[in-house]
Amino acid sequence: MCRWVAYSGQPIFLGQLVADPEHSLIHQSRNAEEAKVGINGDGFGLGWYGERDEPGLYRETLPAWSDDNLRHIARQVRSRLFFAHVRASTGTATSRANCHPFAHGRWLFMHNGQIGGWSRLRRAVEARIPDALYACRTGTTDSEAMFLMTLGQGGETDPVGAMTGTLSALRALMVDAGIDEPLRVTAALSDGSRLYAFRYASDGRPPSLYWRQTASAIEIVSEPVDRHRDEWHAVPDRSALVCCARCACEVVPLAVEEPARAEAA
Amino acid sequence: MCRWVAYSGQPIFLGQLVADPEHSLIHQSRNAEEAKVGINGDGFGLGWYGERDEPGLYRETLPAWSDDNLRHIARQVRSRLFFAHVRASTGTATSRANCHPFAHGRWLFMHNGQIGGWSRLRRAVEARIPDALYACRTGTTDSEAMFLMTLGQGGETDPVGAMTGTLSALRALMVDAGIDEPLRVTAALSDGSRLYAFRYASDGRPPSLYWRQTASAIEIVSEPVDRHRDEWHAVPDRSALVCCARCACEVVPLAVEEPARAEAA
Amino acid sequence: MCRWVAYSGQPIFLGQLVADPEHSLIHQSRNAEEAKVGINGDGFGLGWYGERDEPGLYRETLPAWSDDNLRHIARQVRSRLFFAHVRASTGTATSRANCHPFAHGRWLFMHNGQIGGWSRLRRAVEARIPDALYACRTGTTDSEAMFLMTLGQGGETDPVGAMTGTLSALRALMVDAGIDEPLRVTAALSDGSRLYAFRYASDGRPPSLYWRQTASAIEIVSEPVDRHRDEWHAVPDRSALVCCARCACEVVPLAVEEPARAEAA
Amino acid sequence: MCRWVAYSGQPIFLGQLVADPEHSLIHQSRNAEEAKVGINGDGFGLGWYGERDEPGLYRETLPAWSDDNLRHIARQVRSRLFFAHVRASTGTATSRANCHPFAHGRWLFMHNGQIGGWSRLRRAVEARIPDALYACRTGTTDSEAMFLMTLGQGGETDPVGAMTGTLSALRALMVDAGIDEPLRVTAALSDGSRLYAFRYASDGRPPSLYWRQTASAIEIVSEPVDRHRDEWHAVPDRSALVCCARCACEVVPLAVEEPARAEAA
Repeated sequence: MCRWVAYSGQPIFLGQLVADPEHSLIHQSRNAEEAKVGINGDGFGLGWYGERDEPGLYRETLPAWSDDNLRHIARQVRSRLFFAHVRASTGTATSRANCHPFAHGRWLFMHNGQIGGWSRLRRAVEARIPDALYACRTGTTDSEAMFLMTLGQGGETDPVGAMTGTLSALRALMVDAGIDEPLRVTAALSDGSRLYAFRYASDGRPPSLYWRQTASAIEIVSEPVDRHRDEWHAVPDRSALVCCARCACEVVPLAVEEPARAEAA
Repeated sequence: MCRWVAYSGQPIFLGQLVADPEHSLIHQSRNAEEAKVGINGDGFGLGWYGERDEPGLYRETLPAWSDDNLRHIARQVRSRLFFAHVRASTGTATSRANCHPFAHGRWLFMHNGQIGGWSRLRRAVEARIPDALYACRTGTTDSEAMFLMTLGQGGETDPVGAMTGTLSALRALMVDAGIDEPLRVTAALSDGSRLYAFRYASDGRPPSLYWRQTASAIEIVSEPVDRHRDEWHAVPDRSALVCCARCACEVVPLAVEEPARAEAA
Repeated sequence: MCRWVAYSGQPIFLGQLVADPEHSLIHQSRNAEEAKVGINGDGFGLGWYGERDEPGLYRETLPAWSDDNLRHIARQVRSRLFFAHVRASTGTATSRANCHPFAHGRWLFMHNGQIGGWSRLRRAVEARIPDALYACRTGTTDSEAMFLMTLGQGGETDPVGAMTGTLSALRALMVDAGIDEPLRVTAALSDGSRLYAFRYASDGRPPSLYWRQTASAIEIVSEPVDRHRDEWHAVPDRSALVCCARCACEVVPLAVEEPARAEAA
Repeated sequence: MCRWVAYSGQPIFLGQLVADPEHSLIHQSRNAEEAKVGINGDGFGLGWYGERDEPGLYRETLPAWSDDNLRHIARQVRSRLFFAHVRASTGTATSRANCHPFAHGRWLFMHNGQIGGWSRLRRAVEARIPDALYACRTGTTDSEAMFLMTLGQGGETDPVGAMTGTLSALRALMVDAGIDEPLRVTAALSDGSRLYAFRYASDGRPPSLYWRQTASAIEIVSEPVDRHRDEWHAVPDRSALVCCARCACEVVPLAVEEPARAEAA
């Protein structure tokens, strides 16, 4: 379980979400309120779009609360679309390659949640990564595998359809393997232009996810960064939020196929 | 504020205090129960005596809970006298040089607590480090300065007297500088043979400190590592615990001089 | 390309090979003389057998020359069988998981060399890792994959046969994929009792590898650590060196099968 | 000894000096040609001016050549005035606090060279840091001390005069202490508007330093980043280079006072 923020709108300093608010992402790194654990100290990451098509990444294994470089970058870098993530490992190692966000070409992805039984499923899931993307796998997380799988099944042209396909495929693999633990996902995806967020749990208990739209920006967050709770809307379970810079966000249902559970032999 | 353990006795694997017990030091790194903060994730350190006169050190900026090297060393290294420490910074940077324990020659030191108003006092405190030890200062913590000051005023021959002198001098400097914040200290010191622990607070609220003596060992800990609460004794405030490998520990009062507070001008 | 040392014999401090000699492994980390590059600064690692069946590991991303923890561990830890490795990446990231040695159960492995065309071969090689070991894959190097492949084909009972099989399989995969770059390997493997070293290159240009046997120990090294060149023997290309604590080392040919190169279409 | 680059002019991506040229600063980090050592792998740093008065800092202990975050920041961040530095330690630890550049308020500083006999001089030099700046000392390098000393003697209003004073004071301290090793300095200093570079050696052997002025920019470098050697001018020994965004750079002599050497007793 982790905590994250995604922003699209008028360029702001990353710190305006990451460091400055009362319940900023850095504050959440040791005081998360709506997660299973309050500590998200297993590394963190920033991904931001600047002047280039490809996003920049800054990922580090220190806790977000103790990294001076993070404070500097958050104060200096301004972006119209960025992701930030603080990590609480569900078992994989604390390494930069396992820190979110993940980038591929112009795409950026981050995740909070867990593929239940990951160590037993890993081989089957990695087998679904297409050849062209296999060499891009740099860590061992379920999250990065989910990203590459989604890109591999048309994520660049139909992100919502591809994520639906990924989640359906993961559920099928989990049921095949007899895994009872749930699949729980909140995730964000972007190509530097549109911004997508996803919320899903196979057991009806997805991680928290909120969004707020103002005249100048869309903010999507694991936990509201301030106390104006009335401004923040929960993203419904089994839904995607589809946003672009100059349009209203749209909530779209995620038609994930739930496989029939095989009868015990 | 930090948490620590010190051990002297039959050689054991470091992990027997650091990693294995229900409320081991690694467990305390994110679940401390008797400290102001539950998270001690700003680095950690091990110091142990093996075959050489000088102790070994392993210090790292990652949280103790996520460091694989720590797990390995704790499983492999056996020692008759060792220190382990998890750090919660009171303001100074997360760097190896600021992680405890600190070593000088055959001496090892670690600290939990705070010299109130440290950034205002630092220059005056560092001025008390003798020339011969000044080049050994590698970090910026109040703790390392306290160690070098103590060594500098006879710590190698009379540890209890020298620590009493250090605390008295610090209190005088604090009052001179008009600092109202307290001086709070629990600390451990060893030359590889005898083991000293100190508990002191200028405001009567010292950090927690416990000790247990068995047939084979002495354990001194910020928090008991197991639930046998009846075996653990609190070290009294303003006391030192003086232990050697084959004798009973002795509780000795710390006669710290409290300066008269200057009248407001 | 990397540099490494392996030791089996009377317990010595790791530093006696790693830090103390004129051309110690730490010295080689920035002054290698028989490698393509003189700098081996992309992380390092120690693996050693102590009182437990499983080896201890210490791996770090800093260069070996600047890590104080390494100096301490090398001074304090004594072992009858240990590996040490300084890394020069051939393309994969500088992360602890990509640092050698690799451990699995009681087995330890390290490698110097390269599987030519690794990014194109990675998927096919990882497919050869058996299910039971797949979850143990923590990094992205060719070296760790080679280790798990070797364990997977009987490495625990017939190390020389299994390594021969791995190298033959790799060569077949390389030729299938039309890869012209060579396969070059020097590697060490141990179960804590016997010690195996391997030297092989598909193009007749294997990395350097030497060994020396004294009354009390066997040392196997990428480069001699001292200037007594007459004491050091080169391990022949396409050979294994099989050593045990109380017997003379034996040089055994490695019967790697070289696949016929497919005709160009 | 280290290598660095400083830039002032039309905003460019940091990578245009740090990563892209044939002999970029990253290339110099393992292939320096005009320094005593070719390897500058003891950490690195970036300091850049963006939209704020204070510069941003990114400093890391990994070698510059293996840090993915550096590559990303250099590709994404554009600046009109920036410093970049790769470090070869002359004895102090590899820590972020010892990496250049150093920042204080709107000022940025970096250094290549050495105060001879630093460990013996450290106390006397640190005593020259004024009270107001003492708490800003976060590392143990001679370089950071030189920076704070210079700020402390009027560096913010008369940088050339203050640096001259610092160098004169250092020379006096060195001679007093009977230190025969030289004082060698190339350094850069900026307030985000003007850019100063200094070259000085007490023994006539200063580290290399070059500059190039074009219609749009000033570049000052330890080693030319490309092979157009005719475009680069050596900064003379005992000189400062004073540059502003819209004026020609000026070479100014540095009137460092050389103390008379005390007669041997």
